[in-house]
Amino acid sequence: MRRVAVIGAGVTKFGKHDRTSAELFAAAAADAITDAGIAPSAVQALYFGNVTGGETERQLHMGPLAATLLGLPTVPTTRFENACATSHAAFRHAVMEIASGVSDVVLVGGAERVLNVPTESATEFFAYCSDASIEQPAGLTFPGVFALIARAHMDKYGTTEEQMAHVAVKNHRHGVLNPKAQFQKEISLETVLKSAYVADPLKLFDCCPFTDGGAALVLASEDVARRHRRPIWVLGTHAATDTMFVHEKRDLSRVTATERAAQGAYRQAGKTPTDVDVVELHDCFTIAEIVATEGLGFFEPGTGGLAAEKGWTSLGGKLPVNPSGGLKAKGHPIGATGAAQIAEIVTQLRGEAGPRQVDGARTGLTHTLGGNTATVLVSLFGRD
Amino acid sequence: MRRVAVIGAGVTKFGKHDRTSAELFAAAAADAITDAGIAPSAVQALYFGNVTGGETERQLHMGPLAATLLGLPTVPTTRFENACATSHAAFRHAVMEIASGVSDVVLVGGAERVLNVPTESATEFFAYCSDASIEQPAGLTFPGVFALIARAHMDKYGTTEEQMAHVAVKNHRHGVLNPKAQFQKEISLETVLKSAYVADPLKLFDCCPFTDGGAALVLASEDVARRHRRPIWVLGTHAATDTMFVHEKRDLSRVTATERAAQGAYRQAGKTPTDVDVVELHDCFTIAEIVATEGLGFFEPGTGGLAAEKGWTSLGGKLPVNPSGGLKAKGHPIGATGAAQIAEIVTQLRGEAGPRQVDGARTGLTHTLGGNTATVLVSLFGRD
Repeated sequence: MRRVAVIGAGVTKFGKHDRTSAELFAAAAADAITDAGIAPSAVQALYFGNVTGGETERQLHMGPLAATLLGLPTVPTTRFENACATSHAAFRHAVMEIASGVSDVVLVGGAERVLNVPTESATEFFAYCSDASIEQPAGLTFPGVFALIARAHMDKYGTTEEQMAHVAVKNHRHGVLNPKAQFQKEISLETVLKSAYVADPLKLFDCCPFTDGGAALVLASEDVARRHRRPIWVLGTHAATDTMFVHEKRDLSRVTATERAAQGAYRQAGKTPTDVDVVELHDCFTIAEIVATEGLGFFEPGTGGLAAEKGWTSLGGKLPVNPSGGLKAKGHPIGATGAAQIAEIVTQLRGEAGPRQVDGARTGLTHTLGGNTATVLVSLFGRD
Repeated sequence: MRRVAVIGAGVTKFGKHDRTSAELFAAAAADAITDAGIAPSAVQALYFGNVTGGETERQLHMGPLAATLLGLPTVPTTRFENACATSHAAFRHAVMEIASGVSDVVLVGGAERVLNVPTESATEFFAYCSDASIEQPAGLTFPGVFALIARAHMDKYGTTEEQMAHVAVKNHRHGVLNPKAQFQKEISLETVLKSAYVADPLKLFDCCPFTDGGAALVLASEDVARRHRRPIWVLGTHAATDTMFVHEKRDLSRVTATERAAQGAYRQAGKTPTDVDVVELHDCFTIAEIVATEGLGFFEPGTGGLAAEKGWTSLGGKLPVNPSGGLKAKGHPIGATGAAQIAEIVTQLRGEAGPRQVDGARTGLTHTLGGNTATVLVSLFGRD
């Protein structure tokens, strides 16, 4: 297989926008192309991720629309949808297009617009990513799913609501350092702990927000990447799936798809968890970050809460997690999230993250979760 | 790049079903796995196509659901959506996964369920595949788009409504020979010509139906394929895109994306149009078949209508087109169509198409169109 590098990245401001998903993607993509220093005409394929555009914008078949808006109407394009892991999945397939030799330069990313519909509609549309036969009719929305996971983790390991709150406080502290973040405001442990329950034991400040935004990456083959500045290499990228049904999962305190995706990515990269210097992972809820830091092999099962409490995952800690602010503070435009996480790791490995820079970061990891933990992607990146 | 073969194919009966899209896909996939003669556990990735599941079934993130229903809950899976070209796009990406060396066996296909919603809702949801900013608000649904194409072709070349009707009559005649087809009934030229106008000059019998159904293929690397019966080789597969906006297309009598996708596929395969023995192409409306037979290089521009009238595209003619009955008679479950077309070509190249067999077929082509002719995929297949 041919080596693949990220040579360009672009992310819109996350938050409320009056632009469509395709417009948000086109804006991020234009920035990524400029960042890569390539001619737009060098792009040979467009991989586009979006989840709820049919529901929120009456727009399917969004790939050609994004390409048209970007001024590249004849570039072959595909839309991907894997719930919240959508653009990470698109990224992995784009890597394969280059690895196979079909293309040398691929533009990949995604966008989501959801703040144009009422919150209850957004919650309902997001729930379409869970099973429609049993779980949706039972009223199981995603805060409920992650509340079940939190309760299982608390029961098994003694993880506390205060430990979960530390994740939120840390990610908000990081978000202040990211001008693209939806929330650039520190919060206190007390603010989290006193916020209203959304789905016991998860409170409002344990939950990431609804967000509009777009993110894009330019990927290139080794030959092309060597002619451009700052290639960040894809060392490994792996996908794993688990049963769609919550009632079939044997142990809700673990996300086995995270564990399998991580093992695959580490194996492909020839790396271990101790090689990783900086991480962007899927903190849709605070408990998700705790479980992910365990599943990715950074901390022993049951000690993810302690790691958050002790500050090991803060900037300046043993292993900085979500220096961008994560989904919690940076925001979570679900179709864009995977690509935005990769954009942050690329920025970190280039040493261009400014006040949120992890000093000397050489190896980074991204982790994205889709649906009821049914889809997980993990990728590893490195610099020369 | 590694060679890739289709070693298994499965298609449900097309028509009305009381099963979900994921269930329809799982049924087709189980047949494809059996047909391939592999163990289900040999499947290393699942590529799943669906278009309107969010709208018709409140179900997104359908990949893991399909995998779970199929009894393969841990197989990595991705959902693709490219309007009516969805599962042909999924197929092309699956070919790249094998070509890149990431996997040796990939299951790919798609499904759609739309007869569970009222016809006017189905028409509206399908229209989401056209632009939501200008075209949908103007009331431009797909019969309207193809009526514009028909009118342009008639004005430029003198193509007649009777020539278009010949396409419908021929595809219904072929459909009688396909036990999986939605319509297995011959129709007369008079029936087509006397049917009501849907979008002038297109009448009811110029239009394909709404359909529920699923289709699946097992793809394999050369090493694996050689150990199984009847590999049908992927000789070339190419995607092309065109502007999303109808008003930006310079000449509605042509589908330039078809022409570019065909050129790419022929080049990759080292073939020309005269090498092709059997074709499955995208006859969502009769005019679409006429324009496609020209764009694919089988007939000179402007003579596609004549070819239909003269019977050159009938079984027994110079170049049999849509022996399956095509979208017109076999039916058009949009997420399944691309894979179903490939399944037909595989069946033909194996020599197993029974009464609709094209004698001695060695090279076959599939062509699938998405949206306002904005997405086209063309693939070429051959037997040893």
